[in-house]
Amino acid sequence: MTTITELFACADEASGTAAPGPRSGDAPLLPVVGASTTVPLVDGTSRTYANLDCAASAPALESVGARVAEVLPLYASVHRGAGYLSQVSTALYETSRQSIARFVGAREDDVAIITRNTTDSLNLLAGVVPHGEAVLVLDVEHHANLLPWVQHSGGGQSGTGRVATVLPVQPTVAATLDALRTELARRPYALVTVTGASNVTGEALPLDRVVGLARAAGARVAVDGAQLVPHRGFSLAATDVDYVAFSGHKTYAPFGAGALVGRRDWLDTGVPYLAGGGAVRDVRADRTVWQPAPARHEAGSPNVLGAIALAQACDTLADLPAGALEAHEQALRDRLVRGLERLDGVRVARIWPDSTDPVGVVTFTVADLNPGLVAAYLAAEHGIGVRDGRFCAHPLLAHLGASHGAVRASVGVGTTAEHVDRLVAALGVLLVRGTQAEYEVVDGCWSVVDDTRPLIEVQGLDHLAATAAAACGPALDD
Amino acid sequence: MTTITELFACADEASGTAAPGPRSGDAPLLPVVGASTTVPLVDGTSRTYANLDCAASAPALESVGARVAEVLPLYASVHRGAGYLSQVSTALYETSRQSIARFVGAREDDVAIITRNTTDSLNLLAGVVPHGEAVLVLDVEHHANLLPWVQHSGGGQSGTGRVATVLPVQPTVAATLDALRTELARRPYALVTVTGASNVTGEALPLDRVVGLARAAGARVAVDGAQLVPHRGFSLAATDVDYVAFSGHKTYAPFGAGALVGRRDWLDTGVPYLAGGGAVRDVRADRTVWQPAPARHEAGSPNVLGAIALAQACDTLADLPAGALEAHEQALRDRLVRGLERLDGVRVARIWPDSTDPVGVVTFTVADLNPGLVAAYLAAEHGIGVRDGRFCAHPLLAHLGASHGAVRASVGVGTTAEHVDRLVAALGVLLVRGTQAEYEVVDGCWSVVDDTRPLIEVQGLDHLAATAAAACGPALDD
Repeated sequence: MTTITELFACADEASGTAAPGPRSGDAPLLPVVGASTTVPLVDGTSRTYANLDCAASAPALESVGARVAEVLPLYASVHRGAGYLSQVSTALYETSRQSIARFVGAREDDVAIITRNTTDSLNLLAGVVPHGEAVLVLDVEHHANLLPWVQHSGGGQSGTGRVATVLPVQPTVAATLDALRTELARRPYALVTVTGASNVTGEALPLDRVVGLARAAGARVAVDGAQLVPHRGFSLAATDVDYVAFSGHKTYAPFGAGALVGRRDWLDTGVPYLAGGGAVRDVRADRTVWQPAPARHEAGSPNVLGAIALAQACDTLADLPAGALEAHEQALRDRLVRGLERLDGVRVARIWPDSTDPVGVVTFTVADLNPGLVAAYLAAEHGIGVRDGRFCAHPLLAHLGASHGAVRASVGVGTTAEHVDRLVAALGVLLVRGTQAEYEVVDGCWSVVDDTRPLIEVQGLDHLAATAAAACGPALDD
Repeated sequence: MTTITELFACADEASGTAAPGPRSGDAPLLPVVGASTTVPLVDGTSRTYANLDCAASAPALESVGARVAEVLPLYASVHRGAGYLSQVSTALYETSRQSIARFVGAREDDVAIITRNTTDSLNLLAGVVPHGEAVLVLDVEHHANLLPWVQHSGGGQSGTGRVATVLPVQPTVAATLDALRTELARRPYALVTVTGASNVTGEALPLDRVVGLARAAGARVAVDGAQLVPHRGFSLAATDVDYVAFSGHKTYAPFGAGALVGRRDWLDTGVPYLAGGGAVRDVRADRTVWQPAPARHEAGSPNVLGAIALAQACDTLADLPAGALEAHEQALRDRLVRGLERLDGVRVARIWPDSTDPVGVVTFTVADLNPGLVAAYLAAEHGIGVRDGRFCAHPLLAHLGASHGAVRASVGVGTTAEHVDRLVAALGVLLVRGTQAEYEVVDGCWSVVDDTRPLIEVQGLDHLAATAAAACGPALDD
């Protein structure tokens, strides 16, 4: 077992204090709002917050916060308000749609629909798959790319007419691709939908191989880009993928907008997503004439500021030097995994031993410690934010032997080596000497006993909501 | 015909320049972001923008803009992130839910679901009406409270099992209530859904009478509160209404969140609105266990900032002195209607001659002028933002004899008497001497010929999107 002194020495060494200049990951890649926010610890001190839960919700880029402040005084009704500011807001909204489409390499005839998030985008896509067609999905997916396909799935009895097959993951990438090939030969599929990067392990099947298999079988491909798009970037045109879904709140624009971008035909003619104004050309007592996409699926007033915020994030990320995003993420992920693997008792989860190039999302277990306790400890004693639980991917966690949950750390453009090193050191301390404070489970969540941490001063905040769940078996949330 | 000099004299008189002190409507009731924004006119001058399209999208309250700026540095993942800021963000999100519920007078057991807007809320509600039950709706509704009910309506063949009856409006409130009573006696209804205030005329049926009729027939009542809530306020408990839907972007919080608030039972057990993470307790290959409301209907990461913004708007409006909102709106609406009625050729639309207490939404036609041309003129020559078209209420516009569209002006807490007077004077000038600039229809929208107005300087704005549609018959959008 490593000693605490050695652990901190490891962290120092890993953080490269002896190195002559800055390296990838030493500093934030881009400035984010709240980077200097400090949080109180149970020992009475405070620290800058280390947000290692970017895979769930990333902080806003400073450019995004500034953009929202810039356009807020110009905000007015879009599309059919006739005032000057309505014309400005409409132009900014539609220009944002173009920026968002461009960021994911949309082809000329692709359509970009502004949604609320990836879950929303994939529910929308599920609704426009032509009647009677079949969809193939792996069981490693986030619920957002699993439940929309299996819900209401059936041979036409239940209304959607969509049939979904959930294929069990295989022990290797190679075997999983083989299983995909076999299943695609077994019956016709209209769509194969896969994650671009697992929200649990950061891994993915090689997209070019998936696209090749699908194309050979006459199927389209949809990518859940919730993690891939913000962590790596993505191009529909370059990958020949048909649809991509992603979220603003994971792409440094947490203002309630996400997107679905892809082939126009299903979207132009499929069942309108929301029934309401803006989605229709004409309504009479006896019939409704719907618009084509994107208006068909954007009933009601759109989230104009959300779309502008997301477009700004896309533009800022697109302006990074080529390779900078990947280098930053890879350096931090490597540093984190190396640090975790040095700790006795910490096990890093992998879906496939032969997967390559995972994004900066790392899930692990810490000896036999309850993941919720670990997460609560990291928050209360080190100012670190991670996630615990089953990460909205219950079948995958079962497959990984972690049905009772695990801990996930994920990095982003605002993450620094110090955050990563702090996490590794904190886990080392935990393994060696345990927690300083006492913790208890209250209402299913881990809390500090006699918590003396002051509340941050912000209007309306009168308590801390305990969020680290006690792993308690298969009925565990999330 | 009044002369231009007289018109401006009317406006001066109406604006009370001779009055000794301020009166309701002379000044904004609350400060809004962008109140001092100036826009260019075709004559080379510029004016502060008169936003008379609040019924579509209202500007943000200054308190809302400040609140978003305050919490943005604290933003982190909610519900299952374990960090201190996740605990803070979760507490702020759930406190916001309580503020929103309180603002609409929720009863103790009511549930508040954060949606994106009224359209979204009513689509959600339509999805949880128990199978086989019938819904009654009038044809005067906004599409948001019409299309969700009639779409997929049918006796169980099409999946929803919901049956909707669209009742034609009658010439008076009394006759319409009689028709409701008759229809409710004809067959059992589970739900009657009505607007709290028409988005076209500001009128409504008396809610107490509607609730009385529905209760007597054993039906529940839902209110489309998109206009009522921001323009008047509303209480579920005081009205005994079962559900209310409303929008943040009409309630001075344009950050992409709205709400559905009401009885828990249907929401706890009805079909989950979005399939995805957060909405489920457990997912296995063979079955999914869903959460109760509100989580059941909030799959994916919620719009935390949108909810906080909406809650701030609710709190700010709730802090107004009793009666102030109504007085401000009523003074401005009365001033507007009086001004319009003085103009030969302007006709103000009403659904019912015997309706009382309409909110600050006024629709009118201007002689035989195309409503899109009128709207484009008001924007380009007077810096006024109104709306033209059919206001997402096509059946009602047909009923009002305005299938080719009309012009709508609507006021809000940031509106002043000067905005109203400017509109009335501008319409007077239009009727007397026509437009100064030339206008043409390009791609279906009215534009200024050889427009010399400069673009406001804001990043990414390279054109003005023409939005005033040429009325061209029943296929007209919106």
